[in-house]
Amino acid sequence: MKKYAIGVDIGGTTVKLGLFDKDGCVLEKWEIPTVKDNNGSRILPDIAASIQKRLASMNIEKDDIQGVGVGAPGPVDAEGTVYKAVNLGWDVFNIPKVLNGYLDLPVKAANDANVAAFGEMWQGGGKGHMNMVAVTLGTGVGGGIIVGGNILTGATGAGGEIGHIHIEDNEPEACGCQNHGCLEQYASATGVVRLAKRRLQQDQQPSVLREQQKLSAKAVWDAVKAGDPVAIQVAEQFGEYLGKGLAAVAAVANPEVFVIGGGVSRAGEILFEYIRPAYDKYAFHGCRNAEFALATLGNDAGIFGAAGLILN
Amino acid sequence: MKKYAIGVDIGGTTVKLGLFDKDGCVLEKWEIPTVKDNNGSRILPDIAASIQKRLASMNIEKDDIQGVGVGAPGPVDAEGTVYKAVNLGWDVFNIPKVLNGYLDLPVKAANDANVAAFGEMWQGGGKGHMNMVAVTLGTGVGGGIIVGGNILTGATGAGGEIGHIHIEDNEPEACGCQNHGCLEQYASATGVVRLAKRRLQQDQQPSVLREQQKLSAKAVWDAVKAGDPVAIQVAEQFGEYLGKGLAAVAAVANPEVFVIGGGVSRAGEILFEYIRPAYDKYAFHGCRNAEFALATLGNDAGIFGAAGLILN
Repeated sequence: MKKYAIGVDIGGTTVKLGLFDKDGCVLEKWEIPTVKDNNGSRILPDIAASIQKRLASMNIEKDDIQGVGVGAPGPVDAEGTVYKAVNLGWDVFNIPKVLNGYLDLPVKAANDANVAAFGEMWQGGGKGHMNMVAVTLGTGVGGGIIVGGNILTGATGAGGEIGHIHIEDNEPEACGCQNHGCLEQYASATGVVRLAKRRLQQDQQPSVLREQQKLSAKAVWDAVKAGDPVAIQVAEQFGEYLGKGLAAVAAVANPEVFVIGGGVSRAGEILFEYIRPAYDKYAFHGCRNAEFALATLGNDAGIFGAAGLILN
Repeated sequence: MKKYAIGVDIGGTTVKLGLFDKDGCVLEKWEIPTVKDNNGSRILPDIAASIQKRLASMNIEKDDIQGVGVGAPGPVDAEGTVYKAVNLGWDVFNIPKVLNGYLDLPVKAANDANVAAFGEMWQGGGKGHMNMVAVTLGTGVGGGIIVGGNILTGATGAGGEIGHIHIEDNEPEACGCQNHGCLEQYASATGVVRLAKRRLQQDQQPSVLREQQKLSAKAVWDAVKAGDPVAIQVAEQFGEYLGKGLAAVAAVANPEVFVIGGGVSRAGEILFEYIRPAYDKYAFHGCRNAEFALATLGNDAGIFGAAGLILN
C-alpha cells in the first residue's frame, strides 16, 4: 500500500481538499474556489493543478499517492459517471476518467452526500459499523445508506434520497421536488421553522419563540432546552415525522446505526429524545435495536469519505 | 468451475431441493418433508442425506458439486447464522458450518424471502438488473432488496421487511407485528380482502363481491377485471397504499425494477395499472423510471436463488 490518498469534496462555492495518510489521519487540508464558468469545465483541471502544486510544495512524490477520491454534488453512478450536477453546470461525463487524464492517478467518485456518509462510517459517528444510515438535517434532508461497508448508489444515483419519503398526506405546500408531504418539509432546518411558525399561528400561547425577529431551527432547539412548552410541541412533531420516516428507512435497509448530521444536529443528543419514541413506535421489531449517534466530522465528512473511497 | 450446484429452500412443511447446472438451468427438482421434531434438529441431516442419495442415484460425484445454497425461514445474517426460525423450532446456529459438517461441501445460507428475490434477479422477472426490489404479496407482504447484485441483509437480517413500513395513521386493527397501519395490512392477500370487506360495509352499492360466500383476493381481482365498480375502488385503495409504500422503498434503495410476486400477483399486469399512478405521485423524481415486472419463477424462486448464491 502506498503512503497517502487525497480526498476532494466539490461544493458549489469551494472545493475542499485533504491529504490523508493510510491510517485515515488528515495531514493537510486546503480549499480552492469552485469556478463555474463555461459549464464548470475548469473545476477538474483546477483541482488537478492544486493537488500537483500541493504535493510539490510538500516534496511528496506522485508514486506515493494511492489515489484520489471525489465527492460531487449530483447523481453519480457506481462507475463515477455524473448525471448533470446542476449547481456546477456539469452535464454527463465520467469523473474518474477525466481527472485521471489530468493527474495520471487512480480516481474514484461518488455523490457528495453518499461520500460524506461513507466518511462518517470510516472515521466518524458510525465508525465500527458496516450497515449505517447517515441523515443530514440541513437546508434539506439528505441521506446516505451504507450496506455491508459499501455506498448504496442505486440505479440512478438516487439511493438514500430519504428526504423525499412521503410522510404526510395533508400538506398544502409543495416540497422543492414538487411533491407534497416529503420528510424534508418537516425535519430539515427549514422544516423545523415551518412547523414552529404553524404552531405559533394556532393560538396565542406564550412562547419565547414569539420574541424572535427571525425564527431559526437553532432558536427552536434552544427554546426546547429552556423548557418552552410551545417549542417542545414543535420538537415532538419533528420527532414524530423523523422517527416515522427513519422507521420506513429501517424496514428497507435495517441499519445498525443512524448517524445524524447537518445544521440541526448541532442541537445535540436532545434530538434523540424526540426521534426515538416515534422510531420505536413505528419500526418493525427486528429493526428496533438500531442506535442513534451524532455525526462527528462536520464539514470534513466529505474529504474523509472521498479519501476513504481510496483507502478503506 | 465445477459442473453443478444445489439449491435448498426450507419451508415449514416441505423442503424443496434442486440440482442446477452452471448455466442456471434446473436439471432435477424434488421435495422432502420438513420434520420439525426435537426443535428441527433433523432438518439439516435429512437434507444432507437426501442430497447424497440423489447424487448417488444420478451417478454424480461430489467433486462435481460447486456448493449448496440454502434459504431458511428466519433472520439469517451475512455469515449464514440463523437467529431463531420459529416455524422450524430453530434457535441460533450457523447453517453453512452445520450442513458442511454433514456434506463436506461449501454451503451458503440466507433468509428465504431474500433468496427468492435473488432467484428472481438471477433467472426470473428481474433478470439483467443489479438493483432490484422483490415484493411478495402473499398472506403477508415480504420484500427482498438486491443492491449491486447482492442481497441487502441488514444488521439483524431484517433488511427488506417492507411489509412493515408504516403507511396509515388511522388503523384501529393491529398488524401481526403488533404495530398499526403496516403496508402488509392493505397490500397482502389478506389485506385486499380486508379492504374489500370494509368497502362493502360502507354502503349498499351493488357488487359481484356481495355474492361471494368467502371473499378472496382472487375474487376481488376477478371482479376488477369484470369491471365491477366497487372492486375497482378497492383496487385503487390497494394501489394507493402499495404505490406509496414502494415510493418510500425507492427513496432508500433506488431500484431499476420492482418484481412483484406471491399469490396476489397472479392477477397479472393489471396490478400495475393501480400501483403505478400512486408510485409516480409519491416517488422522488430520480426514482420514477423504475420498472414494474411480474415474478416468473413462482414457488421455484427459492431453489433458484439458493443455487444462485453458489453459481452467480
